[in-house]
Formats: sequence, C-alpha cells, structure tokens
Amino acid sequence: MTEVLVAGEWRAASVAGSFRARNPATREELAQEFPVSAWADCDRALDAAVEAARLLRGFSGEQLGRFLAAYAENIESRADEIVALANEETGLPVKPRLRDVELPRTTTQLRQAASAAREGSWTQAVLDTKNNIRSHFAPIGPVVVFGPNNFPLAFNGISGGDFAAAIATGCPVIAKAHPLHPATSQALAECANAALASSGLPAATAQMLYHLSNEDGLRLVADGRVGATSFTGSRPAGLHLKAAADKAGKPIYLEMSSLNPIVYLPGALKERGEALATETADSGLAAAGQFCTSPNLLFVVESSEARSFINGVAKIYSERASGTLFSEAGLRGLAKGVERLVEAGAKALTAATANGKGYCYPNTVLEVSAGVFLANGEALQQEAFGNATTVVLCADLDELHAALESLEGNLTGAIYSSKAGEDDAFYDGVAEILRGKVGRLMNDKMPTGVALSPAMNHGGPYPSTGHPGFTAVGIPRSLQRFGTLQCYDGVRPERLPAALRDAAPHGEIWRAVDGSWVRG
Amino acid sequence: MTEVLVAGEWRAASVAGSFRARNPATREELAQEFPVSAWADCDRALDAAVEAARLLRGFSGEQLGRFLAAYAENIESRADEIVALANEETGLPVKPRLRDVELPRTTTQLRQAASAAREGSWTQAVLDTKNNIRSHFAPIGPVVVFGPNNFPLAFNGISGGDFAAAIATGCPVIAKAHPLHPATSQALAECANAALASSGLPAATAQMLYHLSNEDGLRLVADGRVGATSFTGSRPAGLHLKAAADKAGKPIYLEMSSLNPIVYLPGALKERGEALATETADSGLAAAGQFCTSPNLLFVVESSEARSFINGVAKIYSERASGTLFSEAGLRGLAKGVERLVEAGAKALTAATANGKGYCYPNTVLEVSAGVFLANGEALQQEAFGNATTVVLCADLDELHAALESLEGNLTGAIYSSKAGEDDAFYDGVAEILRGKVGRLMNDKMPTGVALSPAMNHGGPYPSTGHPGFTAVGIPRSLQRFGTLQCYDGVRPERLPAALRDAAPHGEIWRAVDGSWVRG
Repeated sequence: MTEVLVAGEWRAASVAGSFRARNPATREELAQEFPVSAWADCDRALDAAVEAARLLRGFSGEQLGRFLAAYAENIESRADEIVALANEETGLPVKPRLRDVELPRTTTQLRQAASAAREGSWTQAVLDTKNNIRSHFAPIGPVVVFGPNNFPLAFNGISGGDFAAAIATGCPVIAKAHPLHPATSQALAECANAALASSGLPAATAQMLYHLSNEDGLRLVADGRVGATSFTGSRPAGLHLKAAADKAGKPIYLEMSSLNPIVYLPGALKERGEALATETADSGLAAAGQFCTSPNLLFVVESSEARSFINGVAKIYSERASGTLFSEAGLRGLAKGVERLVEAGAKALTAATANGKGYCYPNTVLEVSAGVFLANGEALQQEAFGNATTVVLCADLDELHAALESLEGNLTGAIYSSKAGEDDAFYDGVAEILRGKVGRLMNDKMPTGVALSPAMNHGGPYPSTGHPGFTAVGIPRSLQRFGTLQCYDGVRPERLPAALRDAAPHGEIWRAVDGSWVRG
Repeated sequence: MTEVLVAGEWRAASVAGSFRARNPATREELAQEFPVSAWADCDRALDAAVEAARLLRGFSGEQLGRFLAAYAENIESRADEIVALANEETGLPVKPRLRDVELPRTTTQLRQAASAAREGSWTQAVLDTKNNIRSHFAPIGPVVVFGPNNFPLAFNGISGGDFAAAIATGCPVIAKAHPLHPATSQALAECANAALASSGLPAATAQMLYHLSNEDGLRLVADGRVGATSFTGSRPAGLHLKAAADKAGKPIYLEMSSLNPIVYLPGALKERGEALATETADSGLAAAGQFCTSPNLLFVVESSEARSFINGVAKIYSERASGTLFSEAGLRGLAKGVERLVEAGAKALTAATANGKGYCYPNTVLEVSAGVFLANGEALQQEAFGNATTVVLCADLDELHAALESLEGNLTGAIYSSKAGEDDAFYDGVAEILRGKVGRLMNDKMPTGVALSPAMNHGGPYPSTGHPGFTAVGIPRSLQRFGTLQCYDGVRPERLPAALRDAAPHGEIWRAVDGSWVRG
C-alpha cells in the first residue's frame, strides 16, 4: 500500500480502506494500491500542521518563495514522468494539454506565488503612524485543500493554485488529493517534500492524504486546528463541506459549479455565425467539456441566423469524436444529467451514440425554449458536467432578459456582439443583467481560458462559489482567502512585525502609510 | 402606532405586534408605541431595495458621498433632540458620552465613508492592460443591518458604521433598529430620509423597520434579494442568523461577543499596579461595562503585587456607583451570567448589592485560579455582559501561557508590561499566543477605545466574529464586506466602468495598474 505524506515523512497510512485508479481511456484498473486514510491520519496531520504553522511565523516571505520556486523546479525536472502518470490516470492528452499547458501553468502559479510571498503586498499593510495603529493580513493557520478531478496538476491539492496561495501566505497545507489521480499526486508530493527539505522549511508545511471517508472530510474542515479550507469540485460535495465548516465557524472557500452562460447577440450571429459555432464547439468540447468554465448554456434570439448557428454547433458536436471522461461515475453523472435536462423539457439535437472504448459519452447539444427554461429554471440549471451544452432559444430580447434574470450565480458570462456596432443598442441591457450573475464578464471570447493574471477573478456569486468576494485564480488576490486581519494598537515599535514599522522594510512591499500607497 | 420607513415613505407598518421602550434609569415605560413588523414589511422593503440597488449603479461615488455628508449635517442640526431621546431610551449620559463622544463619532464615520465613496480606492481596481483583464469590487446588493443595544447612534442600523460602509459601496440598507431605542432610531431615520431627498439618491436607499419576530429575521437574512447582512449583538442571536444566512449562501458579517483578555505582566504590576487598577476599573465600568470591547478577563501571575492589584480593582468596583444597564433583560442576563461563572468556580470579591433605582447590578469582580479556568474553560468564557470582570490568577508563566492558549477568539487582547524593560523576557511568549486569539493586540492600553482609523481592526477570530478577515470599524477596510469581486475580461474599452479604463479616472482613486499602485 502506498504511503501517505504526514509530518514530513512518507509513512504507512492508518488504513480505513483502499482503492486503485483506472485508466479512463481503457477502463483498466491500474496496479498501484492507495489507502483511504482513517481519522488517525487526519489527526496526526493536523497536529503536525499546527506546529508547522507556528514555526512558519519565524520564516520570511523570501524563504517561502524559495520553497515554491524549488518545488516548481522539481516538477520540471520530473515533468515527463508526471505528465505520463497524469495521462494514464485522467486520459487527458500528454500534448498539448498536460505537457504544454497544464504543467507550465502549474509551475507558473508556483513561481507567481513565490514572487507574491517575497514581495509581501498581499498583506495589505495599513499604517496610521499618528495614532500608532497598524494592521495587515497574517496567515490564517493550517489550510486544507480539496483538489478536483479535472486538473491533475494545476488545481491538485498538493500543487495547484490553492496550494500555492496558501503556502505563499505562510499557511501549511494538508492536501486531500483526488482519488482519480493518486499516482500523479504522489509524484507531485515527492517533489514538494524534496523542496521542503532543500529550502529548510518545516517538514509538515506540505502534507498529503489520498482519500478520506465523507465523514472524515466533514470532520476535517470543522476541526478546531484548521484555519481555513478550500475546495474545488461538485456542488453537492461542496455544500456538505460548507455546512460542516460554517457550523464550526471555519472559513471555507468553494468553487462548486457553473454553467458559464454565453449570449450571442443577433448582429454577431449575422456577422460571423459559422465561425462562432466552431469557436463554441472548440471550447465546449475541449477536455470533453470537463472544465469549470465550460460553456454549458448558450442564449440566442430566434432568427434564421440563430437557427443556422444552432445547427452548426450541433453538426460539429455530432461529427467530432467524443473525448474521454475521467471516470465511470463521471460518465454516469453526465448521462443522468442530460436525462434530467431532457425530462425538464430540453430536446437533444445530436444522436445518442458514443464512440471510443474509454469512458465516452456522445457529444450532446440540447435545445430549449426560453419559456420552458423560465418555467423549469431550477432543473434546467443543473450542471451536466462534460461534453454537453444547452441552447436557450429566446423569442425576443425581452425573453432573453427574463431568462438571464433567472440565472443562478456563475463563474463567468460572455457576450458576443457585432464588431460593426449592430448590437450596441442591446449590449447594455444584457450586460447589466449578466454582470450581476457572474464573477467574470467577457466580450467576444470563450470562458475556458482562465489567464494567470493579477486581475483575474475565478469566483462569482453563490452557488458558483461560497462567497462572491474571493477568487481562486489571480495572484496576489487569491492569497487573501488565507489571511486573518491583525491589528497592532499602541504596540511598542520594537515589538511590531518588521513590515509594520515606520521605517520601510527592505524590498518591494506596497504599504498604505497615512493614506498613500508607497513602496520602499 | 409609529410608521416604518419603507421605499422612501413613512407608512403604516404591517403590524405583527407592538412594543414600547423603557427608560432604564427609572424603569418607566415610555409613551410612544412602535410596531413589530410582519413579513409583508420585509417583503416590501426587499423589493424596494432591489430596485434601489439597480438605480444606485447609475450614481457616482461623489453622489453617495453627498448623501452621507448631508446626513451627518442633518444629525448635527438635530443633535440635542437626538441625544435627549437616546439618553431617555438607553440611560447613557448626555455628557460626555452621547453628545461629546458618540454623536461626533457617528457623524465622523459618515463623513469618512463619504470620503471613501468619493475617493473610490476601496474598490481595489486591478488592471492588467496587456491582457485586457480588469477587476474591482462592486456593490454586493441590498444590505440588512442589525444594530446592537449598546450604541444607539454610532452602531445603529440606520446611522452607524455598518450603515455608512454599506452606503459608501453603493448598497442600499434595510436597517433593523434595536427595540431598546426606537425613538432615537426614528429621529435618525428622519435625518437619513431628508438627506436622501436633498441629495437625489433613490428613495429606498435607506429603509428602517423597528422590530421583527425572530422567525422573520431568519427569513430576511436568507432571502434571495439580499446581498449581505451585518449584525452586531449577542452570540446566540448572531449564531442563529449565521446558520440561516450560511444555508442560503448569503454572506453575513457578525460581531458577536468578546471578553477582551488583558495580561498584566509582573514588572508592570510592580511598577504601577495601583494606577493600573484604576485604569482597569475606569475602562471596565464605563457605560456599566456594556461595550463589546470591555475588559472582562484579566490575567495576572501570583505575587504580592498581583494580590494588591486584584484587591485594588475590587475596592474600586465596590466603591463606585453601579451604572445603569440598558434593560431588565440585560440585568437578568448579567445576574445569570455571573451566577454561571460562580457555579463554574469563580469567586466574587465584591458584595452583591446594587444601588440606583434603574436597571442596576452591583459592580462585580470575580477571581478564579488558572487551574479552574483551564478545567472549566467553556463555562468561564461565557460573556457576562455588563459591569463584571473576572481575574484569572496564574501560578506561574507556564500556567499563564496555558490559560491564554485555551482562549476562544476575541476582538481584542492587551498586554501591560514594565516600561523599564523588566518584562521584556516574557513579552514575546505571551504576545505570540495572544496574537493568534485576537483581532487587535494592544500594549499598555485598555480596549474600550476603538479609534476611527483606517488601520483599525474591530474584528477577530470566531466566535468574536464570523470571519477573521473582515473588520466592522476602520474606513475604507470596513467597506470590503459589502463588495463583490467583478472581473472584465476582453471587454471593449467603451463598455468598461470608468474606473477600469486605461485612462486614469478623475479624482483620487488608487489603482494597481500592471503591478504598481498609482493615483491620478
């Protein structure tokens, strides 16, 4: 049985069960056996994390940055092996996805987090020198990260954006790897652990368990020793964890589900409907639609161009080979999801047969009238995670407005409009409604690219996340989730943290000193 | 029956019941009758608030600021009347408390919020011009504010810090006034409503109900039309509201309870024990101890100086006249709270008789050993709100550390130490533990002064609040609670909010443009 990484050591798990991953492209079980940890492993990891959090207060941002950078290097030095494991466990192609996109994204995030840790501005230091009151954000304590199934590297609990953000704030991480890619997680955790040793950080700064019972997961996020939790995954799992954490008064940051509505205004369809059909299919079928930002809900206003567009999307979906889904459960979930949409009034425009020997589901385009969408909004806004998308056909602009008004919170929303200005009269009304429903509003682009930009928001209104003020992507803002606000009032100068003293600390940190942002 | 302020008009309430306030100094019921609103009032206020939130998006920070400033002026022009009402309803002295401290604090907060609204930096605009990705915080939507009993002006739902912060972000407020000071709230709401009219803001920007059933309060914070809620009050009420809001995925900011631990290190007691006893009593008995930052838990290490200090505090508490509590319920609650502390092992050092014909409770000092405190931590950390404080006597420094480690989250913590350096060897160990337990750490000062400083943190770890990353005092940081993060990705320049365009907007706003904070 594979060992877990607890308190700086690979050690035999306290075993509550075991599991093996499967290769989704062949449906074959893989050889390596992994433990489902019993509570004793969580307990040990929590104690070690508390001690690591205490020790980390004595380390500088520079030292945290050194670890993150060394970790990125270690991943690169084992890149081929890691992407091979990830490919075997997830079915995602080695090239371009894993080797050229996701792995570089992962190391870029780690390096951006390293810079943020070194630079220190994420702490938002505010100094009122006249009254000798000073405050900034400090690490919130041990962070539990639940990684999702769909990014084995860039959102992995032990290597992804949440991990990088938590470490950069000085919080130790207990990663709960996703059971669909345990060997990938193991290799990453080995890289992390080696970087801890070489950079001299506390051994328990990064710990990892492969799997837990649901019960122990709920217990973990509510444990008194935890500072905060972050979770990326399904809405039902997220809401269960949220309830447990909320009850215990523990912050939990969730990225749960999103349909990513896209509005195609009439002029855009007239101008470039065929190209938009291809663009939509390219985005919607990428990774078999298994992105949190996959375009799953398309809005058009009835017209001959709209009809051509819908037919165009359906045609491409029908013609392209189905991608591989991550698991049998995912396949069943998608089939069930599409079934529910059909029961709620959506009509399939594509045939229901899949090709491929792996976990494949036929590429699916559904259509529903805005009237039915408005009547059955809750059922028709259930996520069907994968290569299926639904077009909502609106009789006119008023119906489009009403349909958008009825949307739940989403991560993203996009509006395609005529480049010649033909839609300008409609844009504002549509944008005003959509703006309130999404975290990221786009023009003329698909939501599946989530740039690693300081201005990015990978967040949004409930139930796409648990709180609309936080983002999971975009450094340094994503670090904010793992900060606790600490004020020093009348504290003697020599007892203040260096970054809050009158004399500017070394380095690049921005501070708000008596009302002005200054550096150096 | 007094009318409620809904949708810009004073109108007859949808009445579920009625109540009258009492003068706590005489225990006499006051004449004016106020409604307990039925759900229909909430429903109407919510609809009006949604529409106001929509309209407010078309108003500038300058216009919001004009309203807040006009409101402050209106309060000043009716100052004598307002403080007379507040005095009658709360028993708080007109001078200095209401007229010279709390009313100016209230208008200062409104004016600071006005400046923050005009200046706009609270939005934390981040521009990535290379990728054309831009984000900032925008108003979260209608905000429900539950005001507490203990600040009829400066924390009133219709005039206090939460109100000012929400309005400054562009969020309309539905204030739930506290039933212990309804006429004060009415006068303030009149000032607010007049300012809305004179400044041209939407009529429903500020609405007020006097009282609700608990059931309707729970329904209100979970309503789909609400953006967020803020609450200041007791822990049980706060936790009920939190559960309802959490379940609905609605942000709620809570300030619930705090004992505000104070550590007196040995050298400080040797150096100035007598003065510290007076300073402690002055702070602990101010407003009969009815502050959220009242010093309710004092830690000393056994010594003859510690004994003198305890006796000194007890002597002053015994000699001073008892202040007036806000209500009979408050009096009963305090008596019950002290009883519970005694049952849990604390010993009263003061006599149990009160003077005064109002709601008075004898000034009370309790003592408990650290051993008992550690054994009965939960019971001994129950808040007894009012003029009672507990001294924890520690055998040595190790026991002091252990006692501090056992503390729940608090708003504040203070450490008194020798000015000559005699305690320097002990400070770091004590401060490290206390730092993790409190939002604001002080040296050599009492927690009851909460300066209106941008660096202030009136927040802290659970259960003093619901989330340790937010503060209820300190502008502009307190505005952050009412922001939702909105990103614009690839949006055409002319469609961007002015503050996110490449060209710097007019005025004073600070923005992070391609990695640097710049203004103008």
